Amino acid sequence: MEFSSKLLENAVNEMSQLPGIGKRTALRLVLHLLRQPGQQTALLAESLQKMREEINFCKSCHNISDTQLCEICANPNRNEKIVCVVEDVRDVMAIENTSQYKGHYHVLGGKISPMDGIGPGELTIQSLVEKVKEGTVEELIFALSSTMEGDTTNFYIFKQIEEYDITTTTIARGISVGDELEYADEVTLGRSILHRVPFENSLKN
Amino acid sequence: MEFSSKLLENAVNEMSQLPGIGKRTALRLVLHLLRQPGQQTALLAESLQKMREEINFCKSCHNISDTQLCEICANPNRNEKIVCVVEDVRDVMAIENTSQYKGHYHVLGGKISPMDGIGPGELTIQSLVEKVKEGTVEELIFALSSTMEGDTTNFYIFKQIEEYDITTTTIARGISVGDELEYADEVTLGRSILHRVPFENSLKN
Repeated sequence: MEFSSKLLENAVNEMSQLPGIGKRTALRLVLHLLRQPGQQTALLAESLQKMREEINFCKSCHNISDTQLCEICANPNRNEKIVCVVEDVRDVMAIENTSQYKGHYHVLGGKISPMDGIGPGELTIQSLVEKVKEGTVEELIFALSSTMEGDTTNFYIFKQIEEYDITTTTIARGISVGDELEYADEVTLGRSILHRVPFENSLKN
Repeated sequence: MEFSSKLLENAVNEMSQLPGIGKRTALRLVLHLLRQPGQQTALLAESLQKMREEINFCKSCHNISDTQLCEICANPNRNEKIVCVVEDVRDVMAIENTSQYKGHYHVLGGKISPMDGIGPGELTIQSLVEKVKEGTVEELIFALSSTMEGDTTNFYIFKQIEEYDITTTTIARGISVGDELEYADEVTLGRSILHRVPFENSLKN
């Protein structure tokens, strides 16, 4: 792409560094900003920079937070004995949206993935092990996505905490509510039959 | 969406103002920036702001340019007697990529679109009419997209310059090179038959 302006080119190049945004999309976004009042670009630039510089992580669960201890960890009504292990803040938001969970979280910050150069040291696993060692945790719920990386991470953590006397569970895998059986993949359908629950339980929610 | 941090929320909200970027995509992009070195966010923010504040438009053709007169208008090897009327900088880039055109451009900055509140006054039509009035232009090529808005804009400009003695042309509409006839829409196919060209001409390129 040949640009008529260096300023435009730089903006497009930086924009296209974002995942899923190619040069053409970046150009479209940048031209959109040019047509909008300058205020909008200023707000975007400032909010991104402010976020990147001042963002803080909860010292207990490692979730993104503006305070030292996030709202969930600081809430006395939540059960600190149950800890749900998730990949990132999006998973916390998704689970919070269900209003079904009243325990704490532990945000790993990713999954073990040697292909992407992410080893256990890059994640907050050590801090989770410390938390278990302290003895307050009674149940650890693994809620990572069920991919190779997710399973590896689950297993790695499980091995680290095996010696301590706590319950470890994983979220249920099965057919999504509203899904047609015939379109479900075999692994999911197989697990949903193996881990069937008493019919009365399914009526509760 | 409930965010655990105001900083994160602001960044996501500003990001999702961009066209085609919803809240979820914005969150994904922002979290990506958080995982990358702070330098990347700083560069993105700075390049956007610098571009928005310092961008300059060629005083002759209104294309984005870092200089008062853009490279094309300032190039003595280009024919200023032929002016191609386009919507925005992307069209200039697309036509320049073909290496087939050696005339000047005139960037309108949009199309007349009452639905979006864009009237002739918002575009650089007046400046184009002035250019024609000065008498250097011999041919005006309309290269707007063939939509209702494009056709309206073409016609509006045509009416403004009708009295002057210049040639007005539009780019050829027809079947794309490599396209199958059976999949072409009727309007395009119809025009490609009406505006057929001598076979020898098609061998030249």
